[in-house]
Amino acid sequence: MAPYRAVHSIDELRAAIAELGLPAVLKTTRLGYDGKGQRVLREPGDAEAAFAELAPHPLVLEAFVPFEKEISVVVARGLDGTVRAFDAAENVHRHHILHTSTVPADVPAGVEKHAAMLAKVIVVALDYVGVLGVEFFVIPGDRPTLMVNEIAPRVHNSGHWTEAVCLTDQFEQHIRAVAGWPLGDPRRMADVVMQNLIGDEVEMVPGGLDGDTQPHLYGKAEARPGRKMGHINRIVRG
Amino acid sequence: MAPYRAVHSIDELRAAIAELGLPAVLKTTRLGYDGKGQRVLREPGDAEAAFAELAPHPLVLEAFVPFEKEISVVVARGLDGTVRAFDAAENVHRHHILHTSTVPADVPAGVEKHAAMLAKVIVVALDYVGVLGVEFFVIPGDRPTLMVNEIAPRVHNSGHWTEAVCLTDQFEQHIRAVAGWPLGDPRRMADVVMQNLIGDEVEMVPGGLDGDTQPHLYGKAEARPGRKMGHINRIVRG
Repeated sequence: MAPYRAVHSIDELRAAIAELGLPAVLKTTRLGYDGKGQRVLREPGDAEAAFAELAPHPLVLEAFVPFEKEISVVVARGLDGTVRAFDAAENVHRHHILHTSTVPADVPAGVEKHAAMLAKVIVVALDYVGVLGVEFFVIPGDRPTLMVNEIAPRVHNSGHWTEAVCLTDQFEQHIRAVAGWPLGDPRRMADVVMQNLIGDEVEMVPGGLDGDTQPHLYGKAEARPGRKMGHINRIVRG
Repeated sequence: MAPYRAVHSIDELRAAIAELGLPAVLKTTRLGYDGKGQRVLREPGDAEAAFAELAPHPLVLEAFVPFEKEISVVVARGLDGTVRAFDAAENVHRHHILHTSTVPADVPAGVEKHAAMLAKVIVVALDYVGVLGVEFFVIPGDRPTLMVNEIAPRVHNSGHWTEAVCLTDQFEQHIRAVAGWPLGDPRRMADVVMQNLIGDEVEMVPGGLDGDTQPHLYGKAEARPGRKMGHINRIVRG
């Protein structure tokens, strides 16, 4: 976990900046997603405007983590305590919104194994039943390390690729878990890239698609900028 | 195709029996499925009751085919003329209703290849767009031969296994075809057995299921005998 300080006032924010240094990320502690509810502070002069924008919610200032990339693991725990993880995905964001999840992730095997183990530890520690997404920063170094970035207690955008190439996908797995059924086999049968369709990007369907690409549209009436309108899964021939 | 005679009267039926021999199968030419609309005639005395039951529809008498087993191929043709076949399934019936479809079929590789080729020839010859099921009798012999038993211009019960283990399933493939999209990759990623749930068999869900079994229920209100209530796909670990 990144070092952080609770922030209730502009004075507390200034003190937190002095302690943690810059850059740092100011975040709300409620309802943040897709970059909403957070501001990156690069210099002391950024503090006031960012605080004004995000207050009066309770805030935290987090030290900036110099991560190399983000990976995520979707893990499931059944009512009987069985735990099964899907393969790790490598996530690329654009404008703070998930752009692509690529599987397999381009990380050393040891890193992927470690991520799966951490996701399983988390789902057991929470005594959670269902599907849960865990995002990790990969911190570069002689031996890359992992830092948990986000825990999402639900099916996860970075797990939508499982629909295309796994014997059991994350949606079926979640239903199996909460219905008290045995978890299904999460094996991945091919390589895959999931790409979100944000705003106008949804117009690439169906024109831009080939036979290895499966579109999923969410049926939202209006394609507003930054709005997740659907996603495509592109199966990579082995 | 099996030898057959058109039958409009009991006299025509008797003449057809004299020509084709017994056993033979009397069939309606309209709306037959799941053994409905057909009677096996084993001796001359069966003729009158069977005719009375199936008339006044136009009927045919078909010579009995001494088949060893039934296989089927679900094939798709796109709007652009592309043709792709799923792997052949081996079908077992109970009480004239499909019980299981097992993939791969237990037939020589040459037989499966031949079946796929015939299915492709049929879908092209019909200038058909969409998914189409072709059933074949496998006739035993030094070199087993195939006889087309049924053509179904739609997604087919014996293709429901594709949902569990193919990169593209028959439902997606049909939509792709009729929407004018490129056909998807029908590759099969694991062995599988589809089992229909007929009448009360639907009660085995969820109790009798393990993690490799995916249930599909059709939401029919009443489980009448002989009624297809759902199916399960059992993935066979490789």
